[in-house]
Amino acid sequence: MSVTAPKGFRASGVSAGMKASGRPDLALLVADRPVAAAGLFTTNAFPAAPVTLSQRHLLGGRAAAIVVNSGQANAATGEQGLEDASATADAVARAIGVRPAEVLVCSTGVIGPRVKLDALLGGLPRAVGALDARGGAGFAEAILTTDTAAKRTLVQAGGFTVGACAKGAGMIAPDLATLLAFFTTDAAVEPAVLDAAMRRAALPVWNGVTVDACTSTNDAVLALASGASGVRADPGSAALAALEEALATASRDLARQVVLDAEGATKALVVHVGGAVSDADARRVAAAVASSPLVKTMLLGADPNAGRLLQAVGASGVPVDPARARIRLAGKTVVAGGRMVAFDERACAEAMKEREVAVVVDLGIGDGEATAFGCDLGYDYVRINAEYTT
Amino acid sequence: MSVTAPKGFRASGVSAGMKASGRPDLALLVADRPVAAAGLFTTNAFPAAPVTLSQRHLLGGRAAAIVVNSGQANAATGEQGLEDASATADAVARAIGVRPAEVLVCSTGVIGPRVKLDALLGGLPRAVGALDARGGAGFAEAILTTDTAAKRTLVQAGGFTVGACAKGAGMIAPDLATLLAFFTTDAAVEPAVLDAAMRRAALPVWNGVTVDACTSTNDAVLALASGASGVRADPGSAALAALEEALATASRDLARQVVLDAEGATKALVVHVGGAVSDADARRVAAAVASSPLVKTMLLGADPNAGRLLQAVGASGVPVDPARARIRLAGKTVVAGGRMVAFDERACAEAMKEREVAVVVDLGIGDGEATAFGCDLGYDYVRINAEYTT
Repeated sequence: MSVTAPKGFRASGVSAGMKASGRPDLALLVADRPVAAAGLFTTNAFPAAPVTLSQRHLLGGRAAAIVVNSGQANAATGEQGLEDASATADAVARAIGVRPAEVLVCSTGVIGPRVKLDALLGGLPRAVGALDARGGAGFAEAILTTDTAAKRTLVQAGGFTVGACAKGAGMIAPDLATLLAFFTTDAAVEPAVLDAAMRRAALPVWNGVTVDACTSTNDAVLALASGASGVRADPGSAALAALEEALATASRDLARQVVLDAEGATKALVVHVGGAVSDADARRVAAAVASSPLVKTMLLGADPNAGRLLQAVGASGVPVDPARARIRLAGKTVVAGGRMVAFDERACAEAMKEREVAVVVDLGIGDGEATAFGCDLGYDYVRINAEYTT
Repeated sequence: MSVTAPKGFRASGVSAGMKASGRPDLALLVADRPVAAAGLFTTNAFPAAPVTLSQRHLLGGRAAAIVVNSGQANAATGEQGLEDASATADAVARAIGVRPAEVLVCSTGVIGPRVKLDALLGGLPRAVGALDARGGAGFAEAILTTDTAAKRTLVQAGGFTVGACAKGAGMIAPDLATLLAFFTTDAAVEPAVLDAAMRRAALPVWNGVTVDACTSTNDAVLALASGASGVRADPGSAALAALEEALATASRDLARQVVLDAEGATKALVVHVGGAVSDADARRVAAAVASSPLVKTMLLGADPNAGRLLQAVGASGVPVDPARARIRLAGKTVVAGGRMVAFDERACAEAMKEREVAVVVDLGIGDGEATAFGCDLGYDYVRINAEYTT
């Protein structure tokens, strides 16, 4: 399941002692040989050391392994952090017999502290020993932090498979990518084509995810393509179109899982914006609605206080003609012609108790559209983040 | 005190039955004659009816009265809303013997419902009867919604006085102004000079206030200058400089009161950003830090998790050189040279228990600076906004 579903990959997840809880915290994904690889990374001006290292390693377009530690983010750790990430890549390369530049490194956890390198290196032989073609579940488990469940998905299309997993929970407002998602496929695809496919198909989905409007230092979405299915996804081919569609579908599936398991969240909010002057404008409006604390608390309370939707749309900073904008909440039209319209509040409140609530905004002035995936703001978001230890 | 402290003004606040709680909900401020007036208003694309009406009435540069109702925001109410706001101005004009265009109208409360016009008009004679040169306290009380205390201030300077009051509590991220603040002065100043002084001195302060990054539909900051002190604040004069300084001081005082009484807040967060490429960049960084849910929950927990400050600065979208950026939290340097630095976490945590916590960011790449006024994110913000009724 997940990243080991496509042919050509083995994975594992073990407890190496980097998390105080003793839960699995070292994840390893290995391709049978160096394969096409692509990555999307955070735009935060303080990228974590593993982000910087993996960006460098991806310049070659090929990778044979991804190693992930959870517990320490190895962010804001300066030169020492880069040395620790390099030492991790070196150790994995030696253990599986590839070049260090063919190893991608990711970290997630608290910003600031050094990664517990002795624990990581000490656990590595066990992670290598546990590598298995059915190890995707263990991998998906070991990358979690405050998540309560693993996020995995699988899409089969045109003779090949796409598998993927992600972690989420908090500090999630991707601006190029979200905190750690991993895609594998057994389609045969050149690195540059894979990179372009990820940017076209996966990037718009991940950029629409927001738990708390906070873009992390460690965001990374990585993809490896083994080619083991024998299906070639070349530019212009039906197979490439199928691959892009599969990457988008897998991204949307994981995005929903991420927001449903967001810190303190009880339900998902899917905001679709159409009729904007541009897709970029639509994205700003969708992000504004999905990250508004007033919309998020309204969702928690299952209270159709539609003025808050109008507030968020109107404050998003993009061209809006109040007379043309229409807003639907959980299937009911609540704003039209620049004013609130009468709607069945009781039925709307009932519909807002579902696990997923839809907001549809039609700005009525163009063709731009975008979708954002958010969640409600629960008491536990406050509790978790007021008590999360330094 | 507050808006009646300067000579030439009377005010009152009464219960007219627009709030379900029965608390005061109709506020009236009257100048002895039509005086110089200026206003700053929301940039939300769905401005409330009273915002639109007051902007029209201010075209003349003079006003004799401000009438405020709390309970209904008269926002997203279409043509009916404009008629209700006009009827309110007409009734006040008749009652005090001025022209309707000399009356400014403000509303605050739930977005969507019509203002309870019968109650408002029924209570107006009592509000007129209660007008008093010491009525500023009653006025400041009647404009509140979920606020727990009135926000008033008074600055004396160069032979004249500036009085002001504000309401706050929620949906506060002014983008030109915040939800209802009122300034009076007995300086003698031309309308255009007063308008320019408000934009130079008060606007930067109010644009730096954020409770929840949500810009309301009803924001309005109004100023009336009676001239009754006899001190002329003409362009280039020392009196005008003193007036601007007084407006800025009064704004900062009210801004602190607003964030300290924000929904669910237990303490204020003052973020000063210097060394940015421009003031505009500094404002974006200050706003990003002050509105980050992770920074706000860290403040609630009094936990010096400085990685969250670095996250917010790095994700703000402005040019940042990690090697040059320095961040101080509650008096301790926590980030320098692109990495977290060791600091006395226990002493820092103690300092974070104060009623006001300072974050100072020096980007080290320019002269731009700005200050944002925010607050922590408490459980009661979630409770108040999940339960606030439609």
